[in-house]
Amino acid sequence: MISFECDYTQGCHEQIMKRLVETNLEQVCGYGQDHFCQEAKEKIKKACGREDAEVFFLVGGTQTNQIVIDSLLKSYEGAVAAQTGHINVHESGAIEFTGHKVLTLPEYDGKIKAEELEELLKKFWGDGTFEHMVFPGLVYISYPTEYGTIYSKEELSSIYSVCKEYEIPLYIDGARLGYGLMSRQCDLTFEELASLCDVFYIGGTKVGALCGEAVVFTHGNMPKHFLTIAKQHGGLLAKGRLLGIQFDTLFTDNLYFEISKHAIDMAEEIKAGFLERGYKLLKDSPTNQQFIILTNEELAKVQEKVRCEVWEKVDEDHTAVRFASSWGTTREQIDYLWEVMDGLK
Amino acid sequence: MISFECDYTQGCHEQIMKRLVETNLEQVCGYGQDHFCQEAKEKIKKACGREDAEVFFLVGGTQTNQIVIDSLLKSYEGAVAAQTGHINVHESGAIEFTGHKVLTLPEYDGKIKAEELEELLKKFWGDGTFEHMVFPGLVYISYPTEYGTIYSKEELSSIYSVCKEYEIPLYIDGARLGYGLMSRQCDLTFEELASLCDVFYIGGTKVGALCGEAVVFTHGNMPKHFLTIAKQHGGLLAKGRLLGIQFDTLFTDNLYFEISKHAIDMAEEIKAGFLERGYKLLKDSPTNQQFIILTNEELAKVQEKVRCEVWEKVDEDHTAVRFASSWGTTREQIDYLWEVMDGLK
Amino acid sequence: MISFECDYTQGCHEQIMKRLVETNLEQVCGYGQDHFCQEAKEKIKKACGREDAEVFFLVGGTQTNQIVIDSLLKSYEGAVAAQTGHINVHESGAIEFTGHKVLTLPEYDGKIKAEELEELLKKFWGDGTFEHMVFPGLVYISYPTEYGTIYSKEELSSIYSVCKEYEIPLYIDGARLGYGLMSRQCDLTFEELASLCDVFYIGGTKVGALCGEAVVFTHGNMPKHFLTIAKQHGGLLAKGRLLGIQFDTLFTDNLYFEISKHAIDMAEEIKAGFLERGYKLLKDSPTNQQFIILTNEELAKVQEKVRCEVWEKVDEDHTAVRFASSWGTTREQIDYLWEVMDGLK
Amino acid sequence: MISFECDYTQGCHEQIMKRLVETNLEQVCGYGQDHFCQEAKEKIKKACGREDAEVFFLVGGTQTNQIVIDSLLKSYEGAVAAQTGHINVHESGAIEFTGHKVLTLPEYDGKIKAEELEELLKKFWGDGTFEHMVFPGLVYISYPTEYGTIYSKEELSSIYSVCKEYEIPLYIDGARLGYGLMSRQCDLTFEELASLCDVFYIGGTKVGALCGEAVVFTHGNMPKHFLTIAKQHGGLLAKGRLLGIQFDTLFTDNLYFEISKHAIDMAEEIKAGFLERGYKLLKDSPTNQQFIILTNEELAKVQEKVRCEVWEKVDEDHTAVRFASSWGTTREQIDYLWEVMDGLK
Repeated sequence: MISFECDYTQGCHEQIMKRLVETNLEQVCGYGQDHFCQEAKEKIKKACGREDAEVFFLVGGTQTNQIVIDSLLKSYEGAVAAQTGHINVHESGAIEFTGHKVLTLPEYDGKIKAEELEELLKKFWGDGTFEHMVFPGLVYISYPTEYGTIYSKEELSSIYSVCKEYEIPLYIDGARLGYGLMSRQCDLTFEELASLCDVFYIGGTKVGALCGEAVVFTHGNMPKHFLTIAKQHGGLLAKGRLLGIQFDTLFTDNLYFEISKHAIDMAEEIKAGFLERGYKLLKDSPTNQQFIILTNEELAKVQEKVRCEVWEKVDEDHTAVRFASSWGTTREQIDYLWEVMDGLK
Repeated sequence: MISFECDYTQGCHEQIMKRLVETNLEQVCGYGQDHFCQEAKEKIKKACGREDAEVFFLVGGTQTNQIVIDSLLKSYEGAVAAQTGHINVHESGAIEFTGHKVLTLPEYDGKIKAEELEELLKKFWGDGTFEHMVFPGLVYISYPTEYGTIYSKEELSSIYSVCKEYEIPLYIDGARLGYGLMSRQCDLTFEELASLCDVFYIGGTKVGALCGEAVVFTHGNMPKHFLTIAKQHGGLLAKGRLLGIQFDTLFTDNLYFEISKHAIDMAEEIKAGFLERGYKLLKDSPTNQQFIILTNEELAKVQEKVRCEVWEKVDEDHTAVRFASSWGTTREQIDYLWEVMDGLK
Repeated sequence: MISFECDYTQGCHEQIMKRLVETNLEQVCGYGQDHFCQEAKEKIKKACGREDAEVFFLVGGTQTNQIVIDSLLKSYEGAVAAQTGHINVHESGAIEFTGHKVLTLPEYDGKIKAEELEELLKKFWGDGTFEHMVFPGLVYISYPTEYGTIYSKEELSSIYSVCKEYEIPLYIDGARLGYGLMSRQCDLTFEELASLCDVFYIGGTKVGALCGEAVVFTHGNMPKHFLTIAKQHGGLLAKGRLLGIQFDTLFTDNLYFEISKHAIDMAEEIKAGFLERGYKLLKDSPTNQQFIILTNEELAKVQEKVRCEVWEKVDEDHTAVRFASSWGTTREQIDYLWEVMDGLK
Repeated sequence: MISFECDYTQGCHEQIMKRLVETNLEQVCGYGQDHFCQEAKEKIKKACGREDAEVFFLVGGTQTNQIVIDSLLKSYEGAVAAQTGHINVHESGAIEFTGHKVLTLPEYDGKIKAEELEELLKKFWGDGTFEHMVFPGLVYISYPTEYGTIYSKEELSSIYSVCKEYEIPLYIDGARLGYGLMSRQCDLTFEELASLCDVFYIGGTKVGALCGEAVVFTHGNMPKHFLTIAKQHGGLLAKGRLLGIQFDTLFTDNLYFEISKHAIDMAEEIKAGFLERGYKLLKDSPTNQQFIILTNEELAKVQEKVRCEVWEKVDEDHTAVRFASSWGTTREQIDYLWEVMDGLK
């Protein structure tokens, strides 16, 4: 059944598969010390325009959040995040598992506000009892957010300013980074994003790869012995080549951004198609996840023909449904979606 | 440069790559709930002859050891292992990271003895101060061991008997399981091994796969909510299909065991070739890792042409060197090795 | 300087000191196995009317919360608490340190509502993604709360009903238990409280002892090997007698409740005195902590003569200030307070 | 029954009790910020002759080891200790609970050798696979050791030299520090000991106090926010005065060392008395714990009249028994012991 359920329903982009096939029997050393990884790292550093960046490949998103955050925090510090941040909701407590609290801020379409962050930090350090509290030691944001929204350059700059003022690193979860940067609403370049945080990761799993996330410490600030830290957390891949080859391909000829742009084009078609057909949006998302309001009856019928994800109940009769595009979405799939929608009546 | 350094220098077996290519664009759901995973699990259960087994796929070996052991132990329990056990030496403290001590036993060519295990357990429970000590909560062995040796059926049975007597689970690290079971010295079937422990894992990374280990709880004893536990430890793969497809292929037409047998054949040729040439063995290994003693001079020359792993210093002038075969080792590679060795003189 | 800052400014009740002196040179065994601890446990069980209760002595409140909660939760579970719960705010992340998230509910004068608890639990189990979330594994409430308020019998019964329906233990933090039970607003007996939860602790540190909290598992439900768990968490006192003697004294001749009642009488005098003098309350607290609103100017002057705790800013010109009574508060101290207050004008 | 079982059978030294009584109703602030703690810290700094030392009071030994070690190690580091070190054997895995491995060295009467420590460190850093191993991040020794033995000045200097060469802190567990320093075999002053390590603790629990250990960071090297770290580990005492008053008393008029000397005198009498009566020693201990070999028959009879601790089986017919003296041991108790021993025949 055709699926718009999420952005990780398929294997990998054909260019990646081609490279995996071609290089398959080449013998290289393990644990990310191979030449594929080295080359991929160089390409990523060039793409984000930061010579002093340091790159490390990990397998999945929760793993990456866990290892990066635990490696940056002191034992008595926690990570500040939006109430709806992935690390606060959908990672089974992977941050707490490493001993750290997630300190939450209110969310506005999935985003936090610089002023509220500043207030939290100011209040913490001004509070006479702070020695009995969890220290805010890092700020976590997702780009795009869990709701598909993105921070503007100004918003991100303000947040990063606060972080620098309070000497606390800013970490961007880029599970869907490409879809954010290629959004038509985006006013940031990749280089700018890299200059507005201390560490971020480039999501591969949801953007063309079989698996893999590339962590980028933006200014020579990778914690010492990060490989050992990754190993200790169970996150060091023996055949690091699998990650190196994939990211090398994604960062060759701009592939990562081109396929991200494709997903955005497809998402805009989905949004436009629903709007044309008179449907309402739960939120006007500028990225690859579209949130459409269907009647419960419509939903039931659609789900017989197409996979999509129930997002939340809107009222007694209506449900918000997520339709996600990805690097692999085709015009044929979208045509089929309209066929299904038009057949409802 | 041709490498005998370890058994994870190449990508994956061609059958696996073929299947990955064929299935690449099929849309399936995530987190191991896809049909590939389901099919692979059924095949594994059939292969090990245990209807009540439960199978879970993880990405790497250290991750698997960490998650399985932490999920089985109570907070105040530790894992008993040989002094040389992988979890005690080469996993960067991944077990301790989850709060558990590794309690060690002496090793004999990498193996523990049932009698010494029994003595440890007996002494623990007989000691008046045991409430101030770490409780032995699980026994960890590797098959084959870190030295390439394997337990006989009698040895394994004795160890498992002790475990059952003291009601403590036995866990087998099968990172190289295929190479152990296909060893010419092995007197165990796969079914027998599965019946002589509570949980084991079938190593994919070192036996034909790009990545992946299949954990098998042998008798309906998978801890409740194991998926959540894996997620919390950062070990749940979003595109579980990558693991499902690989293990489905490995357990179709006996591929896992056939490629393991090939590696053993290649290893026996390596061993025989060195013996013929008058070299001595550090240990007479029955599996895919061979430990050859070279003079330091020979080693230096060999390393100019072939990659191999320095294992340990034997004396001032001699070094033990590991030559590992794998599913991907070819006769041409071995011929080249002899060419190199014969050219030393 | 006379202090109303908190309820742990003095040593211990004179009866306790007397017993410590009398028993000082008696030789007894360690780790809580001595006869003082045994006798104290029996008295506590009798006082709460539960023969199947199990009692364990620990040194401090945060330690107790950490050990009890960690011992009851599975690794992937968290503790549900009010946003203002002590474990969520003022314990430096001691719960997260043991790997568990604190899941928060809104607070109403420091209390949670049974309906909102039920909604959280219902929603969790009804959510399709719960396997990626932290499981609610225990409910934590404080009695009295951090705001000095107390749950009515009906409120507590409703909360415990929800807990039982969802099979999740209810734990009561009784750091100031005596002050709650002796409150004039309290409609619960000690026996009733003990029958409306699965585990609670009787605070000694704030109610007459030098240190010490008595954990009561109400129905034979103390986790196995709790002593070892306490030891592993660094919480097992070598000279357990220090705790045993103190609790034995507190539970002899109803001392614990009598000195608690004294503190309440003193607190009511403090409240009445401020009201008489025209001051407003931040909250109308029924226990030993009184929250009075002073002008900033008044506050500054008061602090020159008396210690009290700034609680929170009310507006530009006013501050809420905590005046706490305790078992050791005397009429003379209160008279002095009025002298100071009356001298302000 | 008179007990020589261990050195924590009684309450506290009478001088301490006197001070507790005298200061009992004085109102002071909490969490170790009171003047008693400040005064005690100054006296300890003066006694050990280190102006830049920083002192922190904790409640118990395991707690102290756990907090100090966890605060000093990076997440991927472990603590090096003798196989028989208390942290490796009798603390229920409290170190592993905080995520760190205990890396062991062979023991010689409970002591480690500088050369073997150096070898371990050298080997670790020379090993090509060290990134997959637990880094040695701290050296733990106990003074006196678990067997009552003490390091000579030369031995300790050598160990500390190795630590400095490899830039790894040396931590001394001084649970029985006084008994070590007052041993007739001791060739170290308190000042010298403090100058030969980076952190140590002065045991109170076993040397005159009801509870309490004073951690001394010897050269301004207390980890930042140590109070918060202690709180997070559940180790911050609300009524810090209890520790401050006790250590203030112990370090007034040399009390700590005088009562330690008394215990040593008593221990030497015990040793001499047994030797005179023809008994053999398991080890010739220079401190307050004496290990005497009795026949099993003798042991059975002695235990009817006197409490002592079975240490280990020597052979079929003999058992080594620990007789411990302490600050509280009296000549009358020893006379009674000889009465019992002489009555055996």
